[in-house]
Amino acid sequence: MEQVLELKYALDTFYLLMTGALVMWMAAGFAMLEAGLVRAKNTAEILTKNIALYSIACVMYLLVGYQIMYPGEGLNAYIPSIGFLVSEGNTREMVLAGGDSAPVYADMADFFFQVVFVATAMSIVSGAVAERMRLWAFLFFAVVMTGFIYPVQGYWKWGGGFLDQLGFLDYAGSGVVHLCGGTAALAGVLLLGPRLGKYGKNGEIVPIPGANLPLATLGTFILWLGWFGFNGGSQLAVSDVENANAVAKVFVNTNASAAGGLLAATVTARLLFGKADLTMILNGALAGLVAITAEPLTPSPGLATLIGVAGGVLVVFAIVFLDKMRIDDPVGAISVHGVCGIWGLLAVTLSNPTATLLAQVTGLFSIMVFVFISSLIVWTILKFTIGLRVDEEEEIEGVDLGECGVEAYPEFTGNQS
Amino acid sequence: MEQVLELKYALDTFYLLMTGALVMWMAAGFAMLEAGLVRAKNTAEILTKNIALYSIACVMYLLVGYQIMYPGEGLNAYIPSIGFLVSEGNTREMVLAGGDSAPVYADMADFFFQVVFVATAMSIVSGAVAERMRLWAFLFFAVVMTGFIYPVQGYWKWGGGFLDQLGFLDYAGSGVVHLCGGTAALAGVLLLGPRLGKYGKNGEIVPIPGANLPLATLGTFILWLGWFGFNGGSQLAVSDVENANAVAKVFVNTNASAAGGLLAATVTARLLFGKADLTMILNGALAGLVAITAEPLTPSPGLATLIGVAGGVLVVFAIVFLDKMRIDDPVGAISVHGVCGIWGLLAVTLSNPTATLLAQVTGLFSIMVFVFISSLIVWTILKFTIGLRVDEEEEIEGVDLGECGVEAYPEFTGNQS
Amino acid sequence: MEQVLELKYALDTFYLLMTGALVMWMAAGFAMLEAGLVRAKNTAEILTKNIALYSIACVMYLLVGYQIMYPGEGLNAYIPSIGFLVSEGNTREMVLAGGDSAPVYADMADFFFQVVFVATAMSIVSGAVAERMRLWAFLFFAVVMTGFIYPVQGYWKWGGGFLDQLGFLDYAGSGVVHLCGGTAALAGVLLLGPRLGKYGKNGEIVPIPGANLPLATLGTFILWLGWFGFNGGSQLAVSDVENANAVAKVFVNTNASAAGGLLAATVTARLLFGKADLTMILNGALAGLVAITAEPLTPSPGLATLIGVAGGVLVVFAIVFLDKMRIDDPVGAISVHGVCGIWGLLAVTLSNPTATLLAQVTGLFSIMVFVFISSLIVWTILKFTIGLRVDEEEEIEGVDLGECGVEAYPEFTGNQS
Repeated sequence: MEQVLELKYALDTFYLLMTGALVMWMAAGFAMLEAGLVRAKNTAEILTKNIALYSIACVMYLLVGYQIMYPGEGLNAYIPSIGFLVSEGNTREMVLAGGDSAPVYADMADFFFQVVFVATAMSIVSGAVAERMRLWAFLFFAVVMTGFIYPVQGYWKWGGGFLDQLGFLDYAGSGVVHLCGGTAALAGVLLLGPRLGKYGKNGEIVPIPGANLPLATLGTFILWLGWFGFNGGSQLAVSDVENANAVAKVFVNTNASAAGGLLAATVTARLLFGKADLTMILNGALAGLVAITAEPLTPSPGLATLIGVAGGVLVVFAIVFLDKMRIDDPVGAISVHGVCGIWGLLAVTLSNPTATLLAQVTGLFSIMVFVFISSLIVWTILKFTIGLRVDEEEEIEGVDLGECGVEAYPEFTGNQS
Repeated sequence: MEQVLELKYALDTFYLLMTGALVMWMAAGFAMLEAGLVRAKNTAEILTKNIALYSIACVMYLLVGYQIMYPGEGLNAYIPSIGFLVSEGNTREMVLAGGDSAPVYADMADFFFQVVFVATAMSIVSGAVAERMRLWAFLFFAVVMTGFIYPVQGYWKWGGGFLDQLGFLDYAGSGVVHLCGGTAALAGVLLLGPRLGKYGKNGEIVPIPGANLPLATLGTFILWLGWFGFNGGSQLAVSDVENANAVAKVFVNTNASAAGGLLAATVTARLLFGKADLTMILNGALAGLVAITAEPLTPSPGLATLIGVAGGVLVVFAIVFLDKMRIDDPVGAISVHGVCGIWGLLAVTLSNPTATLLAQVTGLFSIMVFVFISSLIVWTILKFTIGLRVDEEEEIEGVDLGECGVEAYPEFTGNQS
Repeated sequence: MEQVLELKYALDTFYLLMTGALVMWMAAGFAMLEAGLVRAKNTAEILTKNIALYSIACVMYLLVGYQIMYPGEGLNAYIPSIGFLVSEGNTREMVLAGGDSAPVYADMADFFFQVVFVATAMSIVSGAVAERMRLWAFLFFAVVMTGFIYPVQGYWKWGGGFLDQLGFLDYAGSGVVHLCGGTAALAGVLLLGPRLGKYGKNGEIVPIPGANLPLATLGTFILWLGWFGFNGGSQLAVSDVENANAVAKVFVNTNASAAGGLLAATVTARLLFGKADLTMILNGALAGLVAITAEPLTPSPGLATLIGVAGGVLVVFAIVFLDKMRIDDPVGAISVHGVCGIWGLLAVTLSNPTATLLAQVTGLFSIMVFVFISSLIVWTILKFTIGLRVDEEEEIEGVDLGECGVEAYPEFTGNQS
């Protein structure tokens, strides 16, 4: 009997670690997606931002974020990280004691699964501010975002804060992760302004094509794969019939919604633009993934597909609309994660009988208002201290040489600039 | 004791989901492999086809395919998908009842593991018809293939149909998946004809090198990794000593056969062409993987290596032969999946004492004849309705601009066309 | 009770297979990293080396290496591979017997987990000798390295040899894998000499930028992900509370050290060179990963981060120093795996009370001396038989055309050479 409890503990721990590793892999997905959608001259810098923000998230969440989001009791509730760092971990006795307070997986596995989520939220920002933001301003923002902004609103829902008590539902983070990231990105983009040449003098919108679409497609596939961990791991247990069924259904629904989003965006792009625009198609898949993230468990696979379809249509119009508003988001991150994050939160009410529209709307506004204002403050401070934007000359030359001192593709584009 | 049964159910469910996720990852592998092996001007379109076909497979298999391949009882046997969509899933009571009829993993996990196989079969087709087929004709074919053609022949073996009753053995689908995909591709290529300029007026074969070999290599590595899920998951259970040993052996043999195939193709290419042709080498690894798929469990690792070696030699000669026959397959898909799929089905008799050559030959002919004829009908209908092939001007300019309205590498090749 | 023992066996087997698959994935990581850091004209050849060496490792380790490293008893101790190939595997009875001698996972899973480590060690070498070594000389070296050199020193520690008995600690192989690979690479580079034009006539060091930094970044992400398998699987068991806790802590520490290494290298590069050099940043992450590999279990996550920080600083100075010594290592492999491997072995003493500096130093010198001398002998024999280095003309033209007969990017660079 004791061995059975140990095995349950071990299986759930292993499950969290493997699904967490898939979420970590999403960092590579964002890096490839964004690197594929910017111009060659800004590629090394966006790669640098992506891999560095992941590292910053790991350090900051260890130092303070985790404790803010999941405050312990006694000393642990007040002194960031110290409590966690000196924690002895779950002993065999604690596990075998059984009952509701017995740990059901390793606390380090919980930390690992949480820390990779922080990085995801921050990855969303890098794409929207690409091709013009200073490297070090971005990295400083990452410090605040992953150490403080994300954990505070994460605590509201997943740490047991007021949104959780209000009945706000967000299974794997359409709001806590995606809307949070999208909102922080929006605040940055508004302060930063559009890329040079994106909007012409006569009001026309100038397309700036990405340099490497195979890379962007690879990034989308990586994100799709990683999302099985993102949503599938958020059940937090797999070791009995009910949880195993739930995790399996989450896998199927996550996949179905992505497929629905992709196909809907393909058709929408075909109807609007006359062509099957690959970048819209990729964003359609991501839109479906974001949309199902708030509730991947209760819909049937058919409904999950339709939730994705709506996300896929929505994202195309959102991207077009933001461009009309002259909000320049080179990769469509605000549309994918912000707009479809909102849709995902609302869509919970379609299948989960315990959801209320009021709680969902309260949750999404709370997250948006808090993240937008706090981000805007940080971005503003950065703007008036080290500066948010590279100078015009550097932007034209490309930020790679100025910020990183290297070119991403020195042999492929040398004869064109 | 009940908890043990639940744990077994949970472990097998988790095992199917993780191996299924690896198979989903193969979709990215095919996309990268094919994108690397076509010319730059046709890259965005092949990426679009690959990620869209995966999505179509998910929707069509959910709607009709799964029900055709694994008909349930009563209502479920007759009304595609409805039965599955309204299914309540396995209850705890059903699992704990034990006995032969008790479910041993979540039915959603089974669906997930099956749906990613359908996409694999369809991915095989896209490479063979690359650089000249219309996008929408291809997508319509994908609808029929993933919704009907694949499931029908899949039912014959894995759904318990006549090939299964005949003793035809195909552990993870050298026939049901790879030969099926390769045969559908062959039918398409025969109707479609070779790319412009591939075969000169004096009968010479003009090499058309792929634009991005790192991408093709990455695709091969992805496929190799994904194949551990493809073959390793096909044991369908891991939760006791016998099954755990089996899965482990399948991993070792799958790896060994791929390694053998790669090395054999390397040496064969060196002897035939004087150089270690990287595209042949990559196809050698894939040939080994396809060849071991029909029976990765009963061979010793040494024999598995040799089965791969034979596949690796075979694929080089098959590619050369098809080219001589003026059957233009830009990525070698027909040789890898069709020819080596046949070899894999025959190789079952080398190590599995319950296999008979008669059953294997009957199986492979049944699959080939059915898939070839049904595919040819669908391709023909498409040819005389929306048209299979882009017009000459578009083919010369590249299908990316015509079909997708974007270029895959706008900055790398702009000054060459 | 019997089912519980079977479940434990199954879970640990599945855990080894999944973590082993992640280590296999590292082969793709090395391939992408190295392909991104060499020039376009040498890319197809480095891809060929990477995927071929993986295959050679699989075959050689099956034939002789595994038996040398883990000699069995009786016949199995003396006749390479035969014993393993004829082994019947663990029966249900052996597992259920319990006690210390009962097998706790499938022996094929053990082989799989071991064989992917051999490939890692060999992958390290290919980067250091890139852009100038003959393909077939390299492949011959891979045969000896994976079949003999690696297994002999692996036996000293993990097979229960004299270093193990001495108390030398190397949890997942900072020494056995990384220092071993780095040392073999150093021996090769010393015999091979620097690339043409790398060191100018007046002693200046000429930077030779890599052709594709997104690829190098992808490779680093792949390695980072794969390392969860590399270190996380090296606990060799997960199925009880103690082991589950251990594996989870290893995941967290591995991630923390990589993050620390990356950030430290970023800051170091910024201070030394004035720019956030992306190639240094990537090597910083890898340095952190190598440094934590000898002991990822006993440090706190904070200490693990610091071990990575030290590795990240060290690697930048090591790369600069090797360049000053005119030891030309195009990808920094000797610095990352050799120098940081040494640091990792020494860092064990910081947190593991059973470690002694004497044992660690003895271990690292034993590995270095043995691997250096044996590698030097093999490289020398190759030099005076088939030749180590391509001729000058071929090196200038690029080894792709000469060795592989193909170009990696025929359309991107054609107008530049």
